[in-house]
Amino acid sequence: MIDIVRPTLLLDERKCKANIARIVDKATKAGVKLRPHFKTHQSHEVGQWFRDFGVTQCTVSSVKMADYFTTDGWNDITIAFPVNPLEHALINELAAKIKLNLCAGSKDAVQLLYNSLKHPIKIFIEVDNGYHRTGIQPSNKEEIGSILSVIHQSELMEFAGFLSHAGHSYKAAFVDEVNKIHTQSKNLMIELGKFYRESFPLLELSIGDTPTCSIADDFSGVDEIRPGNLVFYDLTQSKIGSCRLEDIAIAMACPVVEINSHTNEVFVHGGGVHFSKDFLSREDGSASYGQVVKLTERGWTLPPLKMFVKSLSQEHGVIHAESEEISKIKVGDVIGVLPVHACLTADAMGEYFTLEGKRIVMMR
Amino acid sequence: MIDIVRPTLLLDERKCKANIARIVDKATKAGVKLRPHFKTHQSHEVGQWFRDFGVTQCTVSSVKMADYFTTDGWNDITIAFPVNPLEHALINELAAKIKLNLCAGSKDAVQLLYNSLKHPIKIFIEVDNGYHRTGIQPSNKEEIGSILSVIHQSELMEFAGFLSHAGHSYKAAFVDEVNKIHTQSKNLMIELGKFYRESFPLLELSIGDTPTCSIADDFSGVDEIRPGNLVFYDLTQSKIGSCRLEDIAIAMACPVVEINSHTNEVFVHGGGVHFSKDFLSREDGSASYGQVVKLTERGWTLPPLKMFVKSLSQEHGVIHAESEEISKIKVGDVIGVLPVHACLTADAMGEYFTLEGKRIVMMR
Repeated sequence: MIDIVRPTLLLDERKCKANIARIVDKATKAGVKLRPHFKTHQSHEVGQWFRDFGVTQCTVSSVKMADYFTTDGWNDITIAFPVNPLEHALINELAAKIKLNLCAGSKDAVQLLYNSLKHPIKIFIEVDNGYHRTGIQPSNKEEIGSILSVIHQSELMEFAGFLSHAGHSYKAAFVDEVNKIHTQSKNLMIELGKFYRESFPLLELSIGDTPTCSIADDFSGVDEIRPGNLVFYDLTQSKIGSCRLEDIAIAMACPVVEINSHTNEVFVHGGGVHFSKDFLSREDGSASYGQVVKLTERGWTLPPLKMFVKSLSQEHGVIHAESEEISKIKVGDVIGVLPVHACLTADAMGEYFTLEGKRIVMMR
Repeated sequence: MIDIVRPTLLLDERKCKANIARIVDKATKAGVKLRPHFKTHQSHEVGQWFRDFGVTQCTVSSVKMADYFTTDGWNDITIAFPVNPLEHALINELAAKIKLNLCAGSKDAVQLLYNSLKHPIKIFIEVDNGYHRTGIQPSNKEEIGSILSVIHQSELMEFAGFLSHAGHSYKAAFVDEVNKIHTQSKNLMIELGKFYRESFPLLELSIGDTPTCSIADDFSGVDEIRPGNLVFYDLTQSKIGSCRLEDIAIAMACPVVEINSHTNEVFVHGGGVHFSKDFLSREDGSASYGQVVKLTERGWTLPPLKMFVKSLSQEHGVIHAESEEISKIKVGDVIGVLPVHACLTADAMGEYFTLEGKRIVMMR
């Protein structure tokens, strides 16, 4: 284990590669294309690990992130975020170099893009499959038609197909609910595909979120999946049932700086600037910002200790510890914390270290 | 105004300098030393603005941040975070160069530091003034005495005095409550000072948090104040009554990427990786992650529009907009968002731009 003196995000490379292997295997068996989302790891290094498993296409969440992965040789990238026409300069720069797939949920955005486009791109129309964030209602054939007509006018735009993100699976309380969301969402996409396939025989149907892609096995009828979080997993995914606690590949190492045995609190260096501030609700309604694990030479042990992060300020983490645990902890120790939301935690840190001490720098 | 194509944190330099001027003036009139906390702006540039007002001492929240400001010539720095003995190497490096003041709330931490210290430092004992985060209960003279005895044994440690942070003022619902917290906290420190001043005539009493330092005027009996957030302020401070909305010096510029007039939602590029995820509770119990303002050539207008950020995912911001507002917004517009918590938002961004387009890079 590397020498830890301040909050440090640890990555268990073995667990991470097992997570990659599992989804590669599942996609292969299901006959569906895997276009993993890279917004969680945001690193050339982990991107390379996917490449080592034969993955050649990826998904990102911003134009800037597409640029970052383009510089590392990724040449078929989907930006799964509503196209921002103000970014036309960088979009054009990327479209000149790689196969760039954009998403749109409104005619207005596509029209603005049309006005400034100089190189060929493909456009996915994003549909709302029940998450109710961005995307067109699949029944709204008028808006879909108006986007298709702008695409049709353009010599540089090609219709790629339909894309959706079943983000409501994150709110699922158990596996059956995730399966239900998956089936509904998939069927909705298949129906849409049937409706438009005659006019667009090459259209693709793209779905993807970590809960459904982790839990479901049947992807028949769709063309690609885009899960991202599963490269690391986290407590949120474990609670949903997307993974086991053993599959979570990252943990924050936090130095213990003060202990209050009267209030059963352990204070660590590790706060909102390290974890970000997503939380899970515990059974009693209180918040948990992370679960404490014991760090070892080879990573961390499970199950977690009877300690959880009860609050975070900018640099402080306040941990509730059962009396049996608090007596074993002392100032100067380093404890591990499994994060609630791996994507935001990794982004807040900007880098992570493998257990062997290799520093992996993220996009900045 | 600079050309904005993606989420960009804007700083109104004029408002920021007015905030600095106001606290410098207040501290001068109150005859109390101002040692501003730099964890909010985390930049050499804004540090220089304080210097331009005659400030020569500062507070930081980590050893790394102390190092960052040391490299810009700050030579009297307090790290207002429980000393982490594992950071002894960098602590020693800094203590060799500058006047370094550390904090401790336990004998154990001071003892561990004692074992590795090579250069002179001062130590503040942190006391809990009712916030109930870190710090010793002021009545716990035994623990205070045991820290003092370790300091006494060391030729390199000097007792600086007592430090506290009335962080519970952030939970105050109105100004009177903040004043009450301030009076209690100040009196508690003064009592402690009286008790120990005979043995330590030079001891200092250091308090500081933005609500009490913004709202209270009477600092008689304490030696220094350490507010930080007030350099920028935010919606949380405005809600407490620490500032007017007009005093908030930062706003996130977010491109509009999609609009759903049926659900009264505007989608922007600007999510949890930009704002972090602190929120305020609205009257109906729902969360607000920011208040929308209209950007202009010279900054932003007030009062805010009838639009607020109702949820954030990694890159998406979902804004609720009243019908009268939504009809005026279109894809490709850029709107401003006043943040809920300036410290975490600035930290998440890592940089900000003045309205004149000067890029200010933060510590990394």
